Amino acid sequence: MDLKNKKIVVIGGGTGCFTVLSGLKKYSVNLSAIVSMADSGGSTKILREEFGILPPGDIRRTLVALSRSEKLLSDLFNYRFNEGCLSGHNFGNILITALERIKGSFEGAVEEAGKILNIKGEVIPVTLQNSHLYAVLENSQIIKGEDNIDVPKHDATLKIKKVYLKPKAKANKKAKSAILKADLIVIGPGDLYTSIIPNLLVKGIPEAIKNSRAKKVYVCNLMTKFGETNNFTGMNFVREIEKYLGGKFLDYVILNNKKPPASRVAKYEKEGAVFVKCNREDCKKERFKIIKGNFLRKKGFIRHDPNNLAKTLLKLLE
Amino acid sequence: MDLKNKKIVVIGGGTGCFTVLSGLKKYSVNLSAIVSMADSGGSTKILREEFGILPPGDIRRTLVALSRSEKLLSDLFNYRFNEGCLSGHNFGNILITALERIKGSFEGAVEEAGKILNIKGEVIPVTLQNSHLYAVLENSQIIKGEDNIDVPKHDATLKIKKVYLKPKAKANKKAKSAILKADLIVIGPGDLYTSIIPNLLVKGIPEAIKNSRAKKVYVCNLMTKFGETNNFTGMNFVREIEKYLGGKFLDYVILNNKKPPASRVAKYEKEGAVFVKCNREDCKKERFKIIKGNFLRKKGFIRHDPNNLAKTLLKLLE
Repeated sequence: MDLKNKKIVVIGGGTGCFTVLSGLKKYSVNLSAIVSMADSGGSTKILREEFGILPPGDIRRTLVALSRSEKLLSDLFNYRFNEGCLSGHNFGNILITALERIKGSFEGAVEEAGKILNIKGEVIPVTLQNSHLYAVLENSQIIKGEDNIDVPKHDATLKIKKVYLKPKAKANKKAKSAILKADLIVIGPGDLYTSIIPNLLVKGIPEAIKNSRAKKVYVCNLMTKFGETNNFTGMNFVREIEKYLGGKFLDYVILNNKKPPASRVAKYEKEGAVFVKCNREDCKKERFKIIKGNFLRKKGFIRHDPNNLAKTLLKLLE
Repeated sequence: MDLKNKKIVVIGGGTGCFTVLSGLKKYSVNLSAIVSMADSGGSTKILREEFGILPPGDIRRTLVALSRSEKLLSDLFNYRFNEGCLSGHNFGNILITALERIKGSFEGAVEEAGKILNIKGEVIPVTLQNSHLYAVLENSQIIKGEDNIDVPKHDATLKIKKVYLKPKAKANKKAKSAILKADLIVIGPGDLYTSIIPNLLVKGIPEAIKNSRAKKVYVCNLMTKFGETNNFTGMNFVREIEKYLGGKFLDYVILNNKKPPASRVAKYEKEGAVFVKCNREDCKKERFKIIKGNFLRKKGFIRHDPNNLAKTLLKLLE
């Protein structure tokens, strides 16, 4: 298959997005990564507060995923200081902050950082407006900030009823344009409310996805996350994505059916996370096609295997 | 003249070194910059204290001088944060610090930073040993730290009797080797006691200069500096250089004889700096040849014109 002119848009933010991109970048496709601007934790939190810039953390991770430079430069971008006044900061975040000041725009900074890392494709902030993520819990309690939803200080057995951005944010034109021109749109995997849905909360993004002639695929998470997706099944994830998409636009859902061994799961279970199951009966009447398989990485953290995932995604372009 | 295999070593640290290098880098010569490791001011001071690393400030300036990358990357290296916890730090200093941690050595960090900036030639820390500069004043008062000599808090009308490094530092092998292989060694211009002489205080450097078959040239400063070289004439500068070289090895001294207009000098005079004069009688019996001329930059700060200086230096290779 000639992949050369195929346009793939990956929507996400954190580690999941990194996995998808690091698999796809080995192929001669045209890649765009649309990145959430809701991050407000750690180094990013401090830089947002002190410089008033958009959050650099997820942008940095995505740039590194697409880097074609030598490994040292990626290591440098991800290097986290642990001494003195720089403690807790990732070098890449500091770099994006300096470039933002020099270029006078966050978009310009992302572009220049991409040149330094010689990235394949393009990294696009989903919005250029500064906004924060809020969650409403089932007891109507409101949680402010992506970091407080990601690492809950509240009773994390409570379900998230709804998330929203405040102030409301409009889509970056480049993000809309990439979505509209795409042949394939990949949503996820990644933390549902803190990495994936913040993209769909941006005005213009669900509409662009709906109007795009691209095939739309959602890659479901392998594990639940305590405080976000307690005991979620695959279909619970899909329902939330569809809710924030504003309709049943998904063409494919990729579900892993290979359960990791207990030894690998134990660590996650201690943190209240469980393996995501999907009952075939649940999704019998769905419009989308389910792609089930073993997408599990062979060792280490329970994450998708980037190569297997990339191959499966590229088959959808045939 | 075929300059291709000609090896030029420039010894210095601050702005003066930058001027010499930015002129010479336009020619197809083999350039090595040997940089003082005595800097202890501003961002460098904090990074030395918190990370225990060698001083990155002068290295950064020298790397930028030799950069062949686009201007943005040089701007990035020199960018100084003025907000929050990063306030006062130059981006390039932070980069060198991160690289030092990743590579595990300061030398490795300088090398990698040079690759990022695609430098012409090589930047060599004069020593790899951590040491500080001390000055003894004419009243026997001891001043600790390059920053306190550079920006005096003491009575700056007092003469500097002597400077030394503590603990003593041994020359970086690469610095010695570059000096021994050189065709031309350029010392200065630059702050005499805080940028130039700290190189000559490193054990093995004066010896290497003495033993090198290179032509040795000292480029004298255009202006004196309050607290360092009050009312120095050209010959006062030369005497101090010879004192720390441990002998009369200089082959050439470049002296500017074009006095800048009063309008340009006024600002300097407010800071206790005056134009450096040289009476021809003073240097009649010297071994070295004096090259006098108009080396003044046409506008702005009173600095050497890099192109004029480079042309003059290259003629010495003929």
